[in-house]
Amino acid sequence: MARGRVTIREVAVRAGVSTATASRALSGNHPVPAATRARVVRAARELDYVANAHARALVGGGRKMAAVVVRQVTSPFYAQVAEGVEAEAADRGWLCVVGATGGDPQREMDFVRLMREEGARLVILVGGVVEDDAYRSRVAQYAQALDASGARLVLCGRPAPDPGIPALVVEFDNEAGARAITGYLLSAGHRRIVFLGGLPGNTALDARVAGYRAALAEHGLPPEAAHVVDCGLGRPAGLRAMTELLKGRREFTAVFAGDDMVAAGALRAIAEAALSVPDDISVVGYNDIPLAEDFNPPLTTVRTPAEELGRAAVRIALRDAASAAGRHHLLGTHIVVRRSVGPPRGAL
Amino acid sequence: MARGRVTIREVAVRAGVSTATASRALSGNHPVPAATRARVVRAARELDYVANAHARALVGGGRKMAAVVVRQVTSPFYAQVAEGVEAEAADRGWLCVVGATGGDPQREMDFVRLMREEGARLVILVGGVVEDDAYRSRVAQYAQALDASGARLVLCGRPAPDPGIPALVVEFDNEAGARAITGYLLSAGHRRIVFLGGLPGNTALDARVAGYRAALAEHGLPPEAAHVVDCGLGRPAGLRAMTELLKGRREFTAVFAGDDMVAAGALRAIAEAALSVPDDISVVGYNDIPLAEDFNPPLTTVRTPAEELGRAAVRIALRDAASAAGRHHLLGTHIVVRRSVGPPRGAL
Repeated sequence: MARGRVTIREVAVRAGVSTATASRALSGNHPVPAATRARVVRAARELDYVANAHARALVGGGRKMAAVVVRQVTSPFYAQVAEGVEAEAADRGWLCVVGATGGDPQREMDFVRLMREEGARLVILVGGVVEDDAYRSRVAQYAQALDASGARLVLCGRPAPDPGIPALVVEFDNEAGARAITGYLLSAGHRRIVFLGGLPGNTALDARVAGYRAALAEHGLPPEAAHVVDCGLGRPAGLRAMTELLKGRREFTAVFAGDDMVAAGALRAIAEAALSVPDDISVVGYNDIPLAEDFNPPLTTVRTPAEELGRAAVRIALRDAASAAGRHHLLGTHIVVRRSVGPPRGAL
Repeated sequence: MARGRVTIREVAVRAGVSTATASRALSGNHPVPAATRARVVRAARELDYVANAHARALVGGGRKMAAVVVRQVTSPFYAQVAEGVEAEAADRGWLCVVGATGGDPQREMDFVRLMREEGARLVILVGGVVEDDAYRSRVAQYAQALDASGARLVLCGRPAPDPGIPALVVEFDNEAGARAITGYLLSAGHRRIVFLGGLPGNTALDARVAGYRAALAEHGLPPEAAHVVDCGLGRPAGLRAMTELLKGRREFTAVFAGDDMVAAGALRAIAEAALSVPDDISVVGYNDIPLAEDFNPPLTTVRTPAEELGRAAVRIALRDAASAAGRHHLLGTHIVVRRSVGPPRGAL
């Protein structure tokens, strides 16, 4: 009952031109007289001609295309991961497209569906999330649908909600990085350290808080020594929360910001209160975004392998293309020491 | 000779399931038993079924999708423009996808072609470029091909190489911004101002250099007063060029950096030379990226309407959808005064 798809030859015949001309007119990449182009485009429409790439996408294999999904491209961390994916894709002659969700599950679903329809072979979801039931079922559906069309889902910088789903996981050790930098503050003599930027339920932030608590415990401090401010991420959140903290009696000597943007806001709030970093308060961040060394003072922080995370997502997905489920790759982090940490005030 | 495209009903009949089940199995957004899904996918492949969205793209109208093309997402300026496009698209229920070219014309062409094939209604090229013949012919081809398929090309933050091509231009006044901030340095008493970050042939940078020269002339300085260092953009370029400049005899009292990233590099080089901003050297930038106020000292710079540029590109393109060619919209800029400018050394 079905016939073969309309070919470019049929389009050319109907338009009264050669196949080569029809192809050129539709590709738009070669000069073709406007009238000829119009005739070919009309013929293609009348015949309901669909360019080959679409067909390929549905008959398996898909396009040499990777899709990256991030919350926002203005986050320096997400941008670096996306750039890593792009660089690795470009090295292999693949296309890469980036979608930003603004944190809206509907936009995420629309983008993933579009990419699947267009035959992307890799769909890479980047960054920590709040793992609720809606998220878990969404990701399971993405993974199944992509798997059914021969494509792969990669979770990048977030764990798989269910190890059984056909998704590859490439993340870094959020907890270890947090434990290390908290340990660094403890070694400098700090005992009252605030964690600024909690986001309960978020996989990345919960892991950082866990690392922070673990380090305090390792140094023999009681659980009450932990002070987590759940202000979430972003520079404005850090500025607001830090300003608030500085209004009360100062019960802390150091701040561990949930990421470098929170640290930027905290540094600004401290400067506005006419206090000095690190003389009055020490501050550390997380991620080592490219401008962290330009902060005042240059920020001591945890270097996360952002670009490498994106590169590894592509590389591992293509290398391990044969088998799908449950693969998990963990990259390391390390501390970058700059000038935002000193001994606690009064300790010298 | 052509028949209608294969319908979802035909796929359902062949797979022996209801139309609703076939639709669900292919959408991947609803739970369907794996065996059923496999049967439907097989039937769809055998019938060469193409999801509706593809067909729509070719019969006019296209998808409610905007595509943004930038050099790199890790540029805070580009990221903000892309976010503006995304925000405006999301407000209208449109999808938005971002492509990064890394400055490679081939990647640009591949991405634009993909977006056209996928029926994007808007393709937005962002940022200054070197306008050579290859670029001019490329853009003319994009514009024609998109126009032929009922889509629009928007040039965002760059002029149209030829006012006759069917493209919309939304840019900001690079020259006026540069003239204003150079005037600000002159008013503070500086007469020997280096422009750091020229990129000959690049539309955005050439306009900034022109504004810089115009301001010097307006203040009665001879053409030789201009000192343009063609080091290009990016923090590493600024760091390198400034380090080099500081090795020689210091013939300048102020630096106008081609953008804020160059300024970040220049600030770092000045700090490494144990000099102070603004006591020894004043520094200004261009763009007012989100972290410019976190530099040491906070950067005086030109605020460009990055997010609004992206929003306006979508808004104007959709509002003016009726007529295509030669539209040109120019947004304003203004100076943001912070703490990186003082009187010239020895002037007090």
